[in-house]
Amino acid sequence: MTFPNAGTTRVACAQLTLRVGDQEGNRAAARAAIERAAAAGAEVVVLPELTNSGYVFRDKAEAASLAEPLDGEAVADWTALARRHRMIVVGGLCELDEDGLIRNSAVLVDPTGLRAVHRKAHLFGTEHEIFVPGAELPPVVDTAVGRIGLLVCYDQEFPEYVRTLALRDADLLCVPVNWPLFPRPRGERPSEVIRVQANAAINRMFVAACDRTGTERDVVWTGGSVIVDLDGFPAAGPATGTDDALLIADCALTSARDKRVGEHNDVLGDRRPELYRSVIRSTHPLKEEAR
Amino acid sequence: MTFPNAGTTRVACAQLTLRVGDQEGNRAAARAAIERAAAAGAEVVVLPELTNSGYVFRDKAEAASLAEPLDGEAVADWTALARRHRMIVVGGLCELDEDGLIRNSAVLVDPTGLRAVHRKAHLFGTEHEIFVPGAELPPVVDTAVGRIGLLVCYDQEFPEYVRTLALRDADLLCVPVNWPLFPRPRGERPSEVIRVQANAAINRMFVAACDRTGTERDVVWTGGSVIVDLDGFPAAGPATGTDDALLIADCALTSARDKRVGEHNDVLGDRRPELYRSVIRSTHPLKEEAR
Repeated sequence: MTFPNAGTTRVACAQLTLRVGDQEGNRAAARAAIERAAAAGAEVVVLPELTNSGYVFRDKAEAASLAEPLDGEAVADWTALARRHRMIVVGGLCELDEDGLIRNSAVLVDPTGLRAVHRKAHLFGTEHEIFVPGAELPPVVDTAVGRIGLLVCYDQEFPEYVRTLALRDADLLCVPVNWPLFPRPRGERPSEVIRVQANAAINRMFVAACDRTGTERDVVWTGGSVIVDLDGFPAAGPATGTDDALLIADCALTSARDKRVGEHNDVLGDRRPELYRSVIRSTHPLKEEAR
Repeated sequence: MTFPNAGTTRVACAQLTLRVGDQEGNRAAARAAIERAAAAGAEVVVLPELTNSGYVFRDKAEAASLAEPLDGEAVADWTALARRHRMIVVGGLCELDEDGLIRNSAVLVDPTGLRAVHRKAHLFGTEHEIFVPGAELPPVVDTAVGRIGLLVCYDQEFPEYVRTLALRDADLLCVPVNWPLFPRPRGERPSEVIRVQANAAINRMFVAACDRTGTERDVVWTGGSVIVDLDGFPAAGPATGTDDALLIADCALTSARDKRVGEHNDVLGDRRPELYRSVIRSTHPLKEEAR
């Protein structure tokens, strides 16, 4: 598999309006968005969390009725388009897994087919009533353009978990998200965008987070998609407002393998792992021990 | 010890211009800044990194000539003022430790005297030529206004290390910093400020980072001091430009003990420590194992 732009990779976030329960409509919206990204020269396109189903389920039964397996129609659509356009698609999937469990997943497909699935490990809001959380390290996939890591939404608010991707040399982290709109001071970026920026800078790893727009059963989505560079600054976005958006950034992905800052520092090499032991303990035993 | 404002605590950052080698001048500048903070009603004031010495040493010998012990004049000054004004002072100290080693330290003093010292564990630039890094967890100090954690500058760029403070219930993280000015896109905040914001939001912990201003032997300081609230938004600052500044924010410090977000989430309780094991390993063994 070869791609144009050997030096840089064109990364896109296709921020979409989706409708819970409208499987046909959501599939069509995703296909159209991937086509638009391909037309803009994108080699990697990220879609929002739960692109096939929408997010605000009435109950687990509704989610179950919308979940589909990894060999279902959504992944088949994305794979066909990845093949046609010789690109990589990362999308959020309401997944019915091989054991019949419902998962909030991100998948990565490329022209060779399905390459990886990540099941959201940190569940937000009432998601515990619907999804079974993942219990694995997130995948890092060797692709033709570089090494791509996957997370889903709230996962990226746990920097210990994000770090595990950088430690396995992810060049680009792709994060399908659905960010509910929270109030914020005038002029401030959404807090989630700030976390994306920090994750990128702290790990010197590109991060593309693709959000939703619109309102779904009284939940307003932030629409804050952003692609962030190795210094933590937006290379595209953050998107604002309520419109669908196609963010495009040309990223020299393999430059993420150089973790140096200046002549003397290295953001991974400067770590002091022996001082971080408490982060792998549950909170309460640590409290007991430390006092 | 009692303080006014039972509900909130007035936290200050005294952003200063310092001069390397000018011990008398730096001590006077720190005293004046603490007095100004006290006059503004501050109950906690944070001073920059290496307040007593300045930062850009010619060599280790120069740093050694400026380092002072914990019972030296700088800490004595700060303690006297903490006692007079019934306040807490956190300041950066070029420290000569009990073994004759030079440390880049932060100290916390209150009206009862020296309460804690933290020795910078993550050294930046050429600091390895001068300082011996700390090898401990950073302290969390029970004070009359709440639990205060200490870090120094580059330490806060390691979110695994910051997390260890939140896991021990720090309400407020005080960080003396010296941020060299790096280029950034127009309209963007310094990357270091973004990291402070993310650390605060991710841990639901107040963070006060106090920077320097001016130019020292060709190093321009960012002057980006900031006090950030539990949602990751600035409560005061970020300071800009090249002036000394006194940032003031009234922070309901003990509200940091409530880690909930909405009805269903808790930023510490939602952690999955069993998935973070790789962060305590050194990078290379992990790489070997993961591939």
